[in-house]
Amino acid sequence: MKVARFSSIDGVAHGVVEGDSVKVLRGGLFDEFEYTGKEYPLADVQLLAPVEPGKLVCVGLNYRLHAEESGVPVPDEPMLFMCSPQAIVAQGDTIVLDNHSDRIDFEAEIAIVVGREGRNVRRNEAKDYIFGYTCANDVSNRDLQRKDGQFTRAKSFDTYKPLGPWIETSLDPDNVAIQLWQNGELRQSSNTNDMIFPIARIVEFVSGIMTLKPGDVIITGTPSGVGPMKKGDTIELEIEGIGRLVNKVV
Amino acid sequence: MKVARFSSIDGVAHGVVEGDSVKVLRGGLFDEFEYTGKEYPLADVQLLAPVEPGKLVCVGLNYRLHAEESGVPVPDEPMLFMCSPQAIVAQGDTIVLDNHSDRIDFEAEIAIVVGREGRNVRRNEAKDYIFGYTCANDVSNRDLQRKDGQFTRAKSFDTYKPLGPWIETSLDPDNVAIQLWQNGELRQSSNTNDMIFPIARIVEFVSGIMTLKPGDVIITGTPSGVGPMKKGDTIELEIEGIGRLVNKVV
Repeated sequence: MKVARFSSIDGVAHGVVEGDSVKVLRGGLFDEFEYTGKEYPLADVQLLAPVEPGKLVCVGLNYRLHAEESGVPVPDEPMLFMCSPQAIVAQGDTIVLDNHSDRIDFEAEIAIVVGREGRNVRRNEAKDYIFGYTCANDVSNRDLQRKDGQFTRAKSFDTYKPLGPWIETSLDPDNVAIQLWQNGELRQSSNTNDMIFPIARIVEFVSGIMTLKPGDVIITGTPSGVGPMKKGDTIELEIEGIGRLVNKVV
Repeated sequence: MKVARFSSIDGVAHGVVEGDSVKVLRGGLFDEFEYTGKEYPLADVQLLAPVEPGKLVCVGLNYRLHAEESGVPVPDEPMLFMCSPQAIVAQGDTIVLDNHSDRIDFEAEIAIVVGREGRNVRRNEAKDYIFGYTCANDVSNRDLQRKDGQFTRAKSFDTYKPLGPWIETSLDPDNVAIQLWQNGELRQSSNTNDMIFPIARIVEFVSGIMTLKPGDVIITGTPSGVGPMKKGDTIELEIEGIGRLVNKVV
């Protein structure tokens, strides 16, 4: 099921995307929700970021080939940092490059949307705490990342976390293609089966530190092929079974 | 004005602390609020963390003497990272030490509570965006901090961010004593006038990256004298003009 958040002439709502239309839901997304019976053509609504998380937790290096291209050893534990949830934008929104940076990269990632409060979740129970998955672009100012050591500033500028287009609630996240095109040219092409720490292990690890809350988002690292963006670029990011997230750079 | 959040036999509310009593408020803390006329003895309520922030933003090295004791050069810009808001606990709550760490330090800090949404706030307007100030203990696993490089994990364990006892809305934050006692012995004793980046500059800097939202908390770095805690310790942290935050370690 593809769960979107959107605005229409009737306001903001969640809905289930089926083909070219979206069926409106009511009720809390992480509690009980039901169909209202109302439906819009997808072309008549504006997609919003599918969730507004409390926490936006990020995993550093998590693909073997990306570790190799970065010239760093494969880590023995996930490396975490956090970014501003206000950096999140939606399908079709623009990424506004910070003026002060020399090099600002795209990074295609699969994002976990937490559905249920959890602490010390074991990996074999992780699925019970996950609402679904979406696409994320972990836009990164490389020079600030190097200067600060801490990644938060380099990756937290408003608009630096495109998320969407919607949340897929039925997906095997451990074996799906993840690809990114810059102006139509394929730049990243991998599969989540190259992850060093799979989704369930990440949920176990993060929830061993901090309580996860419904709506929290964990982005899980990027595969090889990251590269710089420039004004005017169109970035398309697709994860098999989820959909394609498209943003322009200004 | 000292604004507290508390639970009483009548539920959770905000109130203004005056002497030994708390006068109950209604309305949004960051909009219009008013007195209900109700009042409790302070001894009859349980103080809660004074705010539940969306973002918990942290500044690294920000006191000259602490930079010297750490043997690092004085930074030219604030160094930011973020922590889990679920790490926040209140006056009287216990700090639960993570089992996996060799050394877990206290760090006394003054916390900014944001009162108004802002982006690109200039330092001479920063006060308009600040609701008030409170005390924070930035509990830190030193070994994980070193291992990860990123500070988020080392400082984000649930209970690692005692905050309180309340928010002081009228304070000159640039010249107040900040002190911390471990089992009655003074460990940290400084003044915010030793800060490398004063409060208004921090608000300018952070809001130049990310939109600040009402309720967001920025903790602003610790002075010299940090040290390890052990089970059974009582940590008392006082900032002149705000109050004293007391927590036990288990």
